[in-house]
Amino acid sequence: VERTGLNEDVTAALDAIAGRRVAHVFLVACGGSLSIMHPGKYLLDRHAPMLPSDVMNADEFTCRAPARLGPDALVILCSQTGTTRETARAAAFARAAGAATIAMTLDPASPLARAAEHVVRYDAPYTTGTPIDPADSNYAVLYMLLAGLIAQRGGPDLRGPLLRSLPALGPAIEAAKAAFAPQSQRFADRFAGAGTIYTTASGVNYGAAYSFAICVLMEMQWIDSQAIHANEFFHGPFEVVDREACFIALVGLDETRRIEERTVGFLRRFGDPDNIMVLDAATLDLSGLEPPFRAALVPLVFFDVLWAFAYLLAARRGHTMLEARRYMKKLVDY
Amino acid sequence: VERTGLNEDVTAALDAIAGRRVAHVFLVACGGSLSIMHPGKYLLDRHAPMLPSDVMNADEFTCRAPARLGPDALVILCSQTGTTRETARAAAFARAAGAATIAMTLDPASPLARAAEHVVRYDAPYTTGTPIDPADSNYAVLYMLLAGLIAQRGGPDLRGPLLRSLPALGPAIEAAKAAFAPQSQRFADRFAGAGTIYTTASGVNYGAAYSFAICVLMEMQWIDSQAIHANEFFHGPFEVVDREACFIALVGLDETRRIEERTVGFLRRFGDPDNIMVLDAATLDLSGLEPPFRAALVPLVFFDVLWAFAYLLAARRGHTMLEARRYMKKLVDY
Repeated sequence: VERTGLNEDVTAALDAIAGRRVAHVFLVACGGSLSIMHPGKYLLDRHAPMLPSDVMNADEFTCRAPARLGPDALVILCSQTGTTRETARAAAFARAAGAATIAMTLDPASPLARAAEHVVRYDAPYTTGTPIDPADSNYAVLYMLLAGLIAQRGGPDLRGPLLRSLPALGPAIEAAKAAFAPQSQRFADRFAGAGTIYTTASGVNYGAAYSFAICVLMEMQWIDSQAIHANEFFHGPFEVVDREACFIALVGLDETRRIEERTVGFLRRFGDPDNIMVLDAATLDLSGLEPPFRAALVPLVFFDVLWAFAYLLAARRGHTMLEARRYMKKLVDY
Repeated sequence: VERTGLNEDVTAALDAIAGRRVAHVFLVACGGSLSIMHPGKYLLDRHAPMLPSDVMNADEFTCRAPARLGPDALVILCSQTGTTRETARAAAFARAAGAATIAMTLDPASPLARAAEHVVRYDAPYTTGTPIDPADSNYAVLYMLLAGLIAQRGGPDLRGPLLRSLPALGPAIEAAKAAFAPQSQRFADRFAGAGTIYTTASGVNYGAAYSFAICVLMEMQWIDSQAIHANEFFHGPFEVVDREACFIALVGLDETRRIEERTVGFLRRFGDPDNIMVLDAATLDLSGLEPPFRAALVPLVFFDVLWAFAYLLAARRGHTMLEARRYMKKLVDY
């Protein structure tokens, strides 16, 4: 689908804050929804000198009560179902402090949506199993919001490249899944018995590595994990590398690529290359994706590839995916 | 030792930047030195509405080249030996961008010290084995720098409470080590065979949990680990909890304490309490430490307690501490 402008919710939210001063942007969520805020901040850091920003876990945000939170702050929050209590509470807290609040969620009637001033809906494939256009995904909508905000605040206008890139995203993801399918099958076999699987990434890809480590490997597969920043890797974590160690290493196209390449070089040298699954975006057909979103959308491509890999891994381990939780959404109080 | 003012290096660095505009503070380092920057940012977030800040791995910082880096930025860097290449390079990069640069290091002749405009020395006990006054440690010096900066920029004057707290820090650490010694011995026995040990913390303590996970458990003991933010814990990681899971949970005195308490409650309910080592600052004698440093110095107290615990654990596992590295400082190129 060709896009001629930002989506309706994004436009409405941006119009509503057009007259407000924004001295700080807080990107606030929990878990998987927090993970997308890292590339959001990367975009701001690269392109928006007028917009300092923080990525913060929602409950940390509420307790910490940053001194810069006030009428000049914009708080963007995200929760897929909109029922994450900490995030809804953070929205109410930010609103009470006078900040502008924009909630990203699937459900405009959810507690988060009701707590925030403005609501931006997005689509997710994982809850229903129905395919969606990734141009309506959390990444796409967050980038629309931030590209619109940066342009509104006098920064570079990234809306054109974004809107031209979005229709190419779905095909790029499908091509990537196909390209990585044989590798995914091989590593699903290889990692089936692993007790620990680490992920590494830097820059715009860190959030995808984080989300896969905590929401997929730990939450759904009960596999020990950690998302290791690809340079922090060399300042401690690399000492766990031996021939048995299992790693998933992301190598993207952003300005930090050389960091991720260095990590892969080390892992292949001192680990067993058969235990090092590398996703390198340079091997992919990303036709139609334009800078800076050619790099900035890579983590979504990677995450979808890893999601498919997780199903193969789960099947190989006899451990179902979405049902395989002991506590989340099973306990009433925790 | 009573302190009548900030130390000489800190005073010189602050005097040198007194006439400069500071619109952004970047806290830049790698690994263990990066870990102290998290509580530094916490202090700024709580008390310095005029100073937005970022904590960033040094190589990420150089590659990302944030748009807010320029003549109005202050970049504080830290490397114990001053030889961390990524950090020295980040200092040179920041200086070339026109930013003010202050390097924290043990060695004023090191590459980092030479790359930065201003140098602030600190002491560390771990390299020589000689006891130091923790009032001269990395935490103490960073807080002096930030308290001085906040006061200089028209924020609250936290220098008094800091200077009055510092002489009480050494005794507080010794008392904490003694208080936790029996527990440390018990858990060294208990964790000796553990393949994975997680740490949890939030707020001002997150850095200590991070440093212990990556620089001690992973680097020196080759034990799989992750520092899990105590609320992020509930959004994925908690699914790995079973009766075998080993956790070290920090519970401090800052505004996020209830987050850490909730995590401990869950761990004790669903894990085996004998595998959950809790360090609760409320049980400690912190006489003489004044707010906000009563809370802000807790991570240093915890880290020193954990350092002693690590020696017990290492002895129990027959795995020496500082010598036990495969790659770090053994390989020439990586």
